[in-house]
Amino acid sequence: MKRLGHEPTIAVCPGSFDPVTYGHLDIIHRAAEVFDKVIVAVLNNASKSPLFTVQQRMELLVEVTRDIPNVEIDGFDDLLVNYIHKKNAHVIIKGLRAVSDFEYEMQMASVNRKLSDEIETFFMMSSTQYSYLSSSVVKQVAMFGGPVEDLVPEVVEKALRTKFEELRKR
Amino acid sequence: MKRLGHEPTIAVCPGSFDPVTYGHLDIIHRAAEVFDKVIVAVLNNASKSPLFTVQQRMELLVEVTRDIPNVEIDGFDDLLVNYIHKKNAHVIIKGLRAVSDFEYEMQMASVNRKLSDEIETFFMMSSTQYSYLSSSVVKQVAMFGGPVEDLVPEVVEKALRTKFEELRKR
Amino acid sequence: MKRLGHEPTIAVCPGSFDPVTYGHLDIIHRAAEVFDKVIVAVLNNASKSPLFTVQQRMELLVEVTRDIPNVEIDGFDDLLVNYIHKKNAHVIIKGLRAVSDFEYEMQMASVNRKLSDEIETFFMMSSTQYSYLSSSVVKQVAMFGGPVEDLVPEVVEKALRTKFEELRKR
Amino acid sequence: MKRLGHEPTIAVCPGSFDPVTYGHLDIIHRAAEVFDKVIVAVLNNASKSPLFTVQQRMELLVEVTRDIPNVEIDGFDDLLVNYIHKKNAHVIIKGLRAVSDFEYEMQMASVNRKLSDEIETFFMMSSTQYSYLSSSVVKQVAMFGGPVEDLVPEVVEKALRTKFEELRKR
Amino acid sequence: MKRLGHEPTIAVCPGSFDPVTYGHLDIIHRAAEVFDKVIVAVLNNASKSPLFTVQQRMELLVEVTRDIPNVEIDGFDDLLVNYIHKKNAHVIIKGLRAVSDFEYEMQMASVNRKLSDEIETFFMMSSTQYSYLSSSVVKQVAMFGGPVEDLVPEVVEKALRTKFEELRKR
Amino acid sequence: MKRLGHEPTIAVCPGSFDPVTYGHLDIIHRAAEVFDKVIVAVLNNASKSPLFTVQQRMELLVEVTRDIPNVEIDGFDDLLVNYIHKKNAHVIIKGLRAVSDFEYEMQMASVNRKLSDEIETFFMMSSTQYSYLSSSVVKQVAMFGGPVEDLVPEVVEKALRTKFEELRKR
Repeated sequence: MKRLGHEPTIAVCPGSFDPVTYGHLDIIHRAAEVFDKVIVAVLNNASKSPLFTVQQRMELLVEVTRDIPNVEIDGFDDLLVNYIHKKNAHVIIKGLRAVSDFEYEMQMASVNRKLSDEIETFFMMSSTQYSYLSSSVVKQVAMFGGPVEDLVPEVVEKALRTKFEELRKR
Repeated sequence: MKRLGHEPTIAVCPGSFDPVTYGHLDIIHRAAEVFDKVIVAVLNNASKSPLFTVQQRMELLVEVTRDIPNVEIDGFDDLLVNYIHKKNAHVIIKGLRAVSDFEYEMQMASVNRKLSDEIETFFMMSSTQYSYLSSSVVKQVAMFGGPVEDLVPEVVEKALRTKFEELRKR
Repeated sequence: MKRLGHEPTIAVCPGSFDPVTYGHLDIIHRAAEVFDKVIVAVLNNASKSPLFTVQQRMELLVEVTRDIPNVEIDGFDDLLVNYIHKKNAHVIIKGLRAVSDFEYEMQMASVNRKLSDEIETFFMMSSTQYSYLSSSVVKQVAMFGGPVEDLVPEVVEKALRTKFEELRKR
Repeated sequence: MKRLGHEPTIAVCPGSFDPVTYGHLDIIHRAAEVFDKVIVAVLNNASKSPLFTVQQRMELLVEVTRDIPNVEIDGFDDLLVNYIHKKNAHVIIKGLRAVSDFEYEMQMASVNRKLSDEIETFFMMSSTQYSYLSSSVVKQVAMFGGPVEDLVPEVVEKALRTKFEELRKR
Repeated sequence: MKRLGHEPTIAVCPGSFDPVTYGHLDIIHRAAEVFDKVIVAVLNNASKSPLFTVQQRMELLVEVTRDIPNVEIDGFDDLLVNYIHKKNAHVIIKGLRAVSDFEYEMQMASVNRKLSDEIETFFMMSSTQYSYLSSSVVKQVAMFGGPVEDLVPEVVEKALRTKFEELRKR
Repeated sequence: MKRLGHEPTIAVCPGSFDPVTYGHLDIIHRAAEVFDKVIVAVLNNASKSPLFTVQQRMELLVEVTRDIPNVEIDGFDDLLVNYIHKKNAHVIIKGLRAVSDFEYEMQMASVNRKLSDEIETFFMMSSTQYSYLSSSVVKQVAMFGGPVEDLVPEVVEKALRTKFEELRKR
């Protein structure tokens, strides 16, 4: 049976967002149309070496989601299901682009349901114009000074340029 | 921006349901936990030759979803997006099992969004114990008199037995 | 070693084209940029029941490729490799959208190379805005009177409307 | 419209080639049959740790393509589309083996077209006898002293043996 | 625990074999190397319209497996698990070529295990030179009079020629 | 022709087992039902950084397979085909979960057959309740102190807890 009708539905959209792209933003916008609140949660994954710090990634997300009132930006460093319980959320939102995404995400959705059967994962399809787009493609193009204005918001474009200038100076 | 908070979120779960399996029922149950109302919509697809009529499929669905108050059973014979607008719904729910499902459903989600960008498709992962389960597998096993009690609710099992007895008499 | 430099490279783009979509047209345009001549060859596949006759499908193709001087429209009813030899061509062009396309086309490319090792198959990726688009999706939307103007050229849109009106009258 | 008929069509075949295998060589041979000139371009990817230097990989490629007059070996360290413009080429050639290749290459083809819509990527299917073959499989077998004579040309076999003897001495 | 060591392991290799190809024969040969007895079981699938009758398909199989002493040819028209129990077998052997095969076969293996957990399905990889080969490709090539001698044994080639001559006369 | 009937069939089940999960154990149990002897062979892969040493992984495997008389635990540090010849085995057993597994394993089976055509690889489908399960998922959940009792045997659970406590102390 449906949980109390007046209780708002909170969805968590977890990811690395290193950095946020128009593809992520499209999913966030569309999820915010359906759920009462969308928490975009930046994973602090110790084992990967990100380009931007969690703090920087969160700041970029705050800037590019300013116009969506029911979106909140956060970071987490825990098992996803624990984080979701702390936030009183019940729904995970993930964008899907390709078959390889699909298999990994199916596996994670399965594990998360096994760890907590109150949590549902909903998959959204990336809009076709962003189906090729990933943070790593953006970083690869930006590293060589290629044009990224169709791939990321302007503020992210600037952050990428600054970051790669810093890296080149070292 | 989120549609008015007090407006209930109505999700449509379309399919052939020829007949409904425990796999479908699992998705319907879980969707009904998250959305205010779930309309299970039986597609009247003229080009396929179903085992059960739309009427019979709807009756089986009514029986097996009796205990879920926010589920409604319906049939439709139209472009899915037209049907959804008529029902004042904004969300399509689809279960995903395998890669082949994934590609077809991504294509349909893309077309539906192209036809109406107010409609979102959310994909849910079938529970692993039902990941092999489809209506056509059920029919194949039942046709040879094999055991289907782990695959479909009892009322569907009976309907299958009756149906195949009728077909054998002809 | 490269065949004589002055000999033009002729590519054949085979398919059902029932009817031609913007997705096909995108591949044809792009192939015509690279090869000296592109023959769009409509397969007369007896075992399928097409919506349009081979003649009608060829006429629609002629109309929508009028502006590409190095494109020729033809029909064939033979083993593809025999047809290609008759046409003095060496290259097959196929568009790819999804994994399911990929596997079938890999199999056909393999068989065609086995039948004639002078023939090369080149695959082109559908532009992302058309990656969801297929003739069967177009027919499904048009059958219910849905909007297809973003999916096919105007002349094809009209042909679809006329065709479905005819079918409804029967 | 086709670019001037007398302008030769130059194709770039980019990759790591660490080292070149019979699978790569098959694609290079077949591409050289269709295009006026094929530039095999070794990517100097700073982030990976290759077995052979770019210089060594290029020397092996020069040796094994000696008999194909319209092939040129080069190295590059730039965005692929920039390199291609510099070389006055318009076509990228990539071999495809499996679904995982397919998805990655589709993504890269899409990004490259977004960065420059004058560039076309053509995919060729690996011949079935090489469909299991990759540089990393070759290195794995050679590392344990296993037989690689069916997988790579003789000169590459020797280079692998020498390289692994060097590494063992350290 | 292993079933009695002296009890021979019987494997069933089910399929349509319409007609048997070199790809099937490769799997049958290799399975017969490992298991004490291999029963090649031709499915009498009423819903499909085969080219050859079950009787004809079995006769072709008998001819082409004459040199393998531990192979038996049979037909069946029942739930596969029932047939296997009747034959006192415990193992199903299936060849795998592509991802689409894989998903379907995984589903069937799962259902068969659900129906009888004493039955194991083992998948064998088609040899790469046959990875493109299927009965339907063979029939398509033979229908147009194309060469099939690399695809099927001579006796099958003759049977195909005779069959298509008969069909043309009607 | 079948190798001498009295010669036992020995199967090798290679892997990292870092650590063994209920998914591995399910495959080992089922393989031990069909083959006379199953050697579970832990790969000492120098290039990966495992959580447990080969010695620790082998000890855990010995503990959890105590009740299966025809299973032997071993480690190896060689080309798989060389190891299999040394062990007088002819069969490799691999579990398959998803499409990505499938492609990699097909490639390895193909290489192994190329290196020695007396060796057959048989693939078994993971039971659906373990289809989401991998050693890396187990480690990820255990690292955050999440519950793993449904994923691994008790002795492995303890070993994981001890290991992560050690790592935290450093």
